[in-house]
Amino acid sequence: MSYSPLIDELIDALRCLPGVGAKSAQRMSFQLLERNRPGAARLAAALAKAVDKVGHCASCRTLTENEQCFICADSRRDTDTICVVESPADVVAFEQSGDYKGLYFVLMGHLSPIDGIGPEEIGIDKLLQRTSELAVNELILATNPTVEGEATAYYITEQMRSRGIAVSRIAHGVPLGGELEYVDSGTLAHALKGRRRID
Amino acid sequence: MSYSPLIDELIDALRCLPGVGAKSAQRMSFQLLERNRPGAARLAAALAKAVDKVGHCASCRTLTENEQCFICADSRRDTDTICVVESPADVVAFEQSGDYKGLYFVLMGHLSPIDGIGPEEIGIDKLLQRTSELAVNELILATNPTVEGEATAYYITEQMRSRGIAVSRIAHGVPLGGELEYVDSGTLAHALKGRRRID
Repeated sequence: MSYSPLIDELIDALRCLPGVGAKSAQRMSFQLLERNRPGAARLAAALAKAVDKVGHCASCRTLTENEQCFICADSRRDTDTICVVESPADVVAFEQSGDYKGLYFVLMGHLSPIDGIGPEEIGIDKLLQRTSELAVNELILATNPTVEGEATAYYITEQMRSRGIAVSRIAHGVPLGGELEYVDSGTLAHALKGRRRID
Repeated sequence: MSYSPLIDELIDALRCLPGVGAKSAQRMSFQLLERNRPGAARLAAALAKAVDKVGHCASCRTLTENEQCFICADSRRDTDTICVVESPADVVAFEQSGDYKGLYFVLMGHLSPIDGIGPEEIGIDKLLQRTSELAVNELILATNPTVEGEATAYYITEQMRSRGIAVSRIAHGVPLGGELEYVDSGTLAHALKGRRRID
């Protein structure tokens, strides 16, 4: 059983969205066609335009429709520090914390040999080139604290060591506002190991 | 803090989808731009085409890009029975059950005076016209068992009574495969009241 061809195609196309299954796609289709056609038309235009125009920043690899993203293009940023993250969303998270004035480098993923993602796919060549161009004196590794993120951080550390660039890893420990009893044991072990003396 | 204008617009446009908030919209944008541009382009095309072409069936009001939906256009359906439902998804649900050979009438909603949805908005005029055109002898009310759905069913019953058309309501009771202890009390009350003698 199906609807008309165009509706079926819309339902099917909506399923390419992460987390959207058959039922949600159906609900979305009806909602858009019944109650929000201007919204649907706007979404169609936004998608088409983004697919057509958005590429990668020539300097940091994040997603942008310009040659350089607005952080790389901002001459007030400190060019001697680069923070390496996995995704553009991580850049936004750091920018919202407001404390960081350096540049970023976005891997657009992490090392994952099983999926065929090696150093080339995450732009390590570009990162090496960038660190030497800018005479970077600190590379901050802010990949996710997952197995793949740690492996990626380790790989980058090895690459930088031979080039004499200082590398640091962001601190892992108990999050602010978190309650100790709900924090997992791995995080607690990290928090203990990374303890600092109070002077 | 924001991304580039095109990405911001895409994230914002995705939020018109039901159940999609700021974080999901962001995740969807990156997923589409990073890993599935063909899917994004296909979705853009499907949306644009559906918005442009899909309208309502001239006979039963369901969504379709044709003058008549394929059920109304099917000459093998019994034209003396009409099943009244709230949405196109309900039609699909009944068709999947496979037992019903009559026609449908899709209200595309339910009476809801607070939202300005009166008899005109749910097509009661058209339903009356249709029942007399087809010489319908049974109207099956399959609106949802909610306050609005019941009110809508009641209103339609009143309209039909004065015209001498037989009206029935689908049975409400314990769903198949359901366990009694998890069924709510309203449903159980319905199941008791609608009990049938076993001969």
